[in-house]
Amino acid sequence: MAHKICVIEGDGIGKEVVPASINVLEATGVDFEFIYAEAGDEVFEKTGKALPEETVEKALESDAVFFGAAGETAADVIVKLRQILKTYANVRPVKAYKGINCLRDDIDYVIVRENTEGLYKGLEAEIDEGITTATRVITRKACERIFKFAFELARDRKKQGKEGKVTCAHKANVLKVTDGLFKKVFYEVAEEYDDIKVEDYYIDAMNMYIITKPQVFDVVVTSNLFGDILSDGAAGTVGGLGLAPSANIGDEHGLFEPVHGSAPDIAGKGIANPTATILSGVLMLRYLKEFEAADKIEKALEEVLAAGLTTPDLGGKLNTFQMAEEVAKRVEK
Amino acid sequence: MAHKICVIEGDGIGKEVVPASINVLEATGVDFEFIYAEAGDEVFEKTGKALPEETVEKALESDAVFFGAAGETAADVIVKLRQILKTYANVRPVKAYKGINCLRDDIDYVIVRENTEGLYKGLEAEIDEGITTATRVITRKACERIFKFAFELARDRKKQGKEGKVTCAHKANVLKVTDGLFKKVFYEVAEEYDDIKVEDYYIDAMNMYIITKPQVFDVVVTSNLFGDILSDGAAGTVGGLGLAPSANIGDEHGLFEPVHGSAPDIAGKGIANPTATILSGVLMLRYLKEFEAADKIEKALEEVLAAGLTTPDLGGKLNTFQMAEEVAKRVEK
Ligand SMILES: CC(C)[C@H](C(=O)O)[C@@H](O)C(=O)O
Ligand SMILES: CC(C)[C@H](C(=O)O)[C@@H](O)C(=O)O
Repeated sequence: MAHKICVIEGDGIGKEVVPASINVLEATGVDFEFIYAEAGDEVFEKTGKALPEETVEKALESDAVFFGAAGETAADVIVKLRQILKTYANVRPVKAYKGINCLRDDIDYVIVRENTEGLYKGLEAEIDEGITTATRVITRKACERIFKFAFELARDRKKQGKEGKVTCAHKANVLKVTDGLFKKVFYEVAEEYDDIKVEDYYIDAMNMYIITKPQVFDVVVTSNLFGDILSDGAAGTVGGLGLAPSANIGDEHGLFEPVHGSAPDIAGKGIANPTATILSGVLMLRYLKEFEAADKIEKALEEVLAAGLTTPDLGGKLNTFQMAEEVAKRVEK
Repeated sequence: MAHKICVIEGDGIGKEVVPASINVLEATGVDFEFIYAEAGDEVFEKTGKALPEETVEKALESDAVFFGAAGETAADVIVKLRQILKTYANVRPVKAYKGINCLRDDIDYVIVRENTEGLYKGLEAEIDEGITTATRVITRKACERIFKFAFELARDRKKQGKEGKVTCAHKANVLKVTDGLFKKVFYEVAEEYDDIKVEDYYIDAMNMYIITKPQVFDVVVTSNLFGDILSDGAAGTVGGLGLAPSANIGDEHGLFEPVHGSAPDIAGKGIANPTATILSGVLMLRYLKEFEAADKIEKALEEVLAAGLTTPDLGGKLNTFQMAEEVAKRVEK
């Protein structure tokens, strides 16, 4: 049966990188049924809603959501979608590809970001004039769930020859209650996985280590906003946001999106790098258990990057669709 | 009159890098009166107090505090001292020195971290079993104060030939109330400084830009925890924490400390890099308006680093005191 995919191109370069990546997905021969839905600034201007009901319904009844980018309304679209779809794990691979200007060529780890709580709960208030608060929420339940996810991922990766290690990043020295719980539950869950190595660092130190020793990491797990900040830094060490994909995974839904935004400065020029979105498609294929198709695309993309058949941001001369076409051609072979 | 300096060596390598750096300070011929005080794990084990009353008194009645590092109790010592001394601006220069392995050789900016509120307020609670919260506080008053500080710093730097730009990092797309206020006040204060350029980025993007375009920054201003995370990453781009100094500045007090911790793994071996502490001494001298002495030390240190007369972490063969001695010798000349 065809995989039913809810496609949300969104704003700006979302309208370019998503169709280009869909060409690549289709080249695999996997059977897809694409259902299109709207979200972001454009539909907000038309209807007053950045995330229309209809889009939510389509997302909920699909096997997966393939998302591009939203503009100013990004937070209202993507944070809400993650909540509605209960995708509690935000998975962000950090990998050095040949042909890309990376800090080192042996970087290959995954950041697992808790995706439902922390400072993303939306609990803010103006207590008095000029006095504002935001409430950071950390619960045992969400901690257990995300750590189990991280350890299972480390086990999967170990089977593929990786080290089998989970690194927890927190700020338990200052946030003694919330991150105290986070760290405590981490080591509790770790006990169920004695085949996997563990370590923990303060988030500030961790943010340095992704620069000074990125090669030592395998799976890095952290809370919502820390993961947001850390993963952009990590992307910077392996070629930037043009190459950074992400998967939002829950028990019932999956949402796949490039880490970058709608990039209004280059939107419409056809020069956006489709790599992050193509790689998000690879993550989607693995989620759909289409492992062979996923490997095919990743291999084809590796060839294209190594050959310099890229968009200008990576030093190449191709436009978005041409670069995707180079990948698609190699997938079809 | 002699400058009265409260010296807190603290734990671990604090006991090595601080005395070594004091040798350098004394080589300038500036008149100091050093008053020693205890804080950290060791005094906690002896007395049950990580930050004894007596230390606080000595800190309060000195012209400046020169701090090394604390171990497990670091948060209880340093966060409290910052609060007690009302040092609202945490100033962290990020500079590429010759002879050091940096991402680029033209990195030269300063991170100004708000030092009194945000998630460092200590407002945490266990609401119910396994449900914890921390309250992030952002106030107009603290925002105005830190932004003015940042703009004044940019003006000072402009006089010395720097670009004259302040970059504000926040997460106003998600933290619409707290960082909405932060961003709003930033642009209000900016209006009083029309000689200074301004820009703002989301903290996640900013954490990538310190890697992908660090050369474009001059003064970067952000909230407490964001500054904590960002400054360690930034340190990683210019040689690591062994070289990262900091100044905590208030209207009445100044506290100067390396960004690194007590490093129990190398404590007692005499191999700790004194650079971060020597540079913190340079910041202290500038605070005390001893500009000539400050410049002398910085120049001497630059020579020593460029000549590779360093501790092993930077590839040299000297121990902590020998490296400091090389700096002191050049200061005396
Ligand atoms: C657009 C924004 C709300 C989002 C986030 O903060 O999660 C983005 O930065 C990301 O990392 O996916
Ligand atoms: C030790 C710790 C409490 C401190 C902080 O979080 O501010 C440190 O990381 C720093 O950056 O000075």
